[in-house]
Amino acid sequence: MQHPPVGLVGIGLMGEAFARRLVAADHAVLGYDVEPAKRAHLHAIGGQVAEGLTEIARRAQPIILAVFDTEQVEEATDALAAALPPDARRIVLCASTCDPDRIAALAARHGNIRFVETPVSGTSQQVLLGNGVGLIGGDAHAAAEAALVLDAIYPTRFHVGAAGDAGRTKLAINLILGLNRLALAEGLVFAERMGLDGAAFLDVARRSAAYSQIMDVKGDAMLARDFAPKGRARQTLKDARLMLDQAARVGQQLPLLEVHAAILEACVREGEGELDNSVVIEEIRRRHRRA
Amino acid sequence: MQHPPVGLVGIGLMGEAFARRLVAADHAVLGYDVEPAKRAHLHAIGGQVAEGLTEIARRAQPIILAVFDTEQVEEATDALAAALPPDARRIVLCASTCDPDRIAALAARHGNIRFVETPVSGTSQQVLLGNGVGLIGGDAHAAAEAALVLDAIYPTRFHVGAAGDAGRTKLAINLILGLNRLALAEGLVFAERMGLDGAAFLDVARRSAAYSQIMDVKGDAMLARDFAPKGRARQTLKDARLMLDQAARVGQQLPLLEVHAAILEACVREGEGELDNSVVIEEIRRRHRRA
Repeated sequence: MQHPPVGLVGIGLMGEAFARRLVAADHAVLGYDVEPAKRAHLHAIGGQVAEGLTEIARRAQPIILAVFDTEQVEEATDALAAALPPDARRIVLCASTCDPDRIAALAARHGNIRFVETPVSGTSQQVLLGNGVGLIGGDAHAAAEAALVLDAIYPTRFHVGAAGDAGRTKLAINLILGLNRLALAEGLVFAERMGLDGAAFLDVARRSAAYSQIMDVKGDAMLARDFAPKGRARQTLKDARLMLDQAARVGQQLPLLEVHAAILEACVREGEGELDNSVVIEEIRRRHRRA
Repeated sequence: MQHPPVGLVGIGLMGEAFARRLVAADHAVLGYDVEPAKRAHLHAIGGQVAEGLTEIARRAQPIILAVFDTEQVEEATDALAAALPPDARRIVLCASTCDPDRIAALAARHGNIRFVETPVSGTSQQVLLGNGVGLIGGDAHAAAEAALVLDAIYPTRFHVGAAGDAGRTKLAINLILGLNRLALAEGLVFAERMGLDGAAFLDVARRSAAYSQIMDVKGDAMLARDFAPKGRARQTLKDARLMLDQAARVGQQLPLLEVHAAILEACVREGEGELDNSVVIEEIRRRHRRA
């Protein structure tokens, strides 16, 4: 018996990384994106292009969602459920970063969809290199059945709980990640403003108790003021607002995150929204008034 | 020719760690503290007790200062300079965390004192284990002459610049360290408030791109609400104010550090000043209003 192809809805930066890793691991990939150029790109890297979600629902198992936001995840899941033949069931692996409460509701909505959250801690580049850390939430049996596919895209992963919990874990991890990035920016500006050499300071800081992984990932670029986007400031602001919404829902103040959101808003106002999120260092630099 | 003993002024937690490491490396230690109990303690761990700073000035080389603050460093250095015989010169290694500008001025004050800044990134416990990272600033020739002593107390160290620059480096490193600590606190509270298991979340966060060394040092204690002091909140607030003073002097705003200082102030108001600085997580927990 031939294995069905792995379905892929959404072929942006992350979807492409998934497709490349699946093809490299000898999985057939049947994908779709609303943009023709992205469909052509999938074909070029060795995937098959579906006519639409109906074909993916009928032929693929499991089906990975790598679309933009919660709305698109809901639309795609509803469309897949509606397109399935009677008595057919499919595993849907949702890699998009979403509102956790809406994902928990969506996971319970369709009897013919076994829904597993699969967001990642890491960039599409890290996923491509096999260094993305998969956060798995929801139906553990479905996740086990999809293990070969998950092995291909996330060699390291953690099952963190029910549907919604992977998104919650991702939001809390990204809260810390973003704050470590901004703390590094503030420390670098402080060091430079006191007259220290930034590169020498960063070297010492990386050897000290203040070490954070973001120093390796963003430190040199911040000093060189190289903001070629790996993750855009505008997107990071959107995520920060998602975190603040969640926090408001549970009645929790997050004072550092509020500062981070305000700094990102200032960057967007300055026209830096499309630049890398490490551009927050420029807003810290602007908060200087010479005597 | 017999080597002169290493001088040690101040036998608190850090001074004791220095004394233990020096004795273990077969250096004779001649030390003094204004508190008789600390002098007795030095004797118990294998050091010699001096009658006062005059004896240390006359007999010891180099002389390590491990006193509380800038005022005490200035007083001790002036006293040592005044007590030296004509034509004698001494190397003074200053391990206290101080105001960098006043240290730069002090280093130039006395013709018979060769002043080297030697603050550490790390706790007295880390120094004791040989894991303190020494930050060296000032007279490079004097630092080279004192290399055997520095080897004993700081196996890893960096010469970061002129006198004052080691203190500046320490302040900027500790700014990042303190903010990483508070970011971790905020992330843990956010995760718990959304219903995640704190220990499982911390485990995933440590494997993620959000990793910081403070997760290893303080994560478990924050979750267990164990605030036995390694570094006290009151002292960390004092250091944060020193950073804010420096920043004001160079006209730089530091928005995250301002939040950190306010959180530490709230902890001190709540009677938590003598607890470990990771108690900031309790203030974040208090910023919760149930719906």
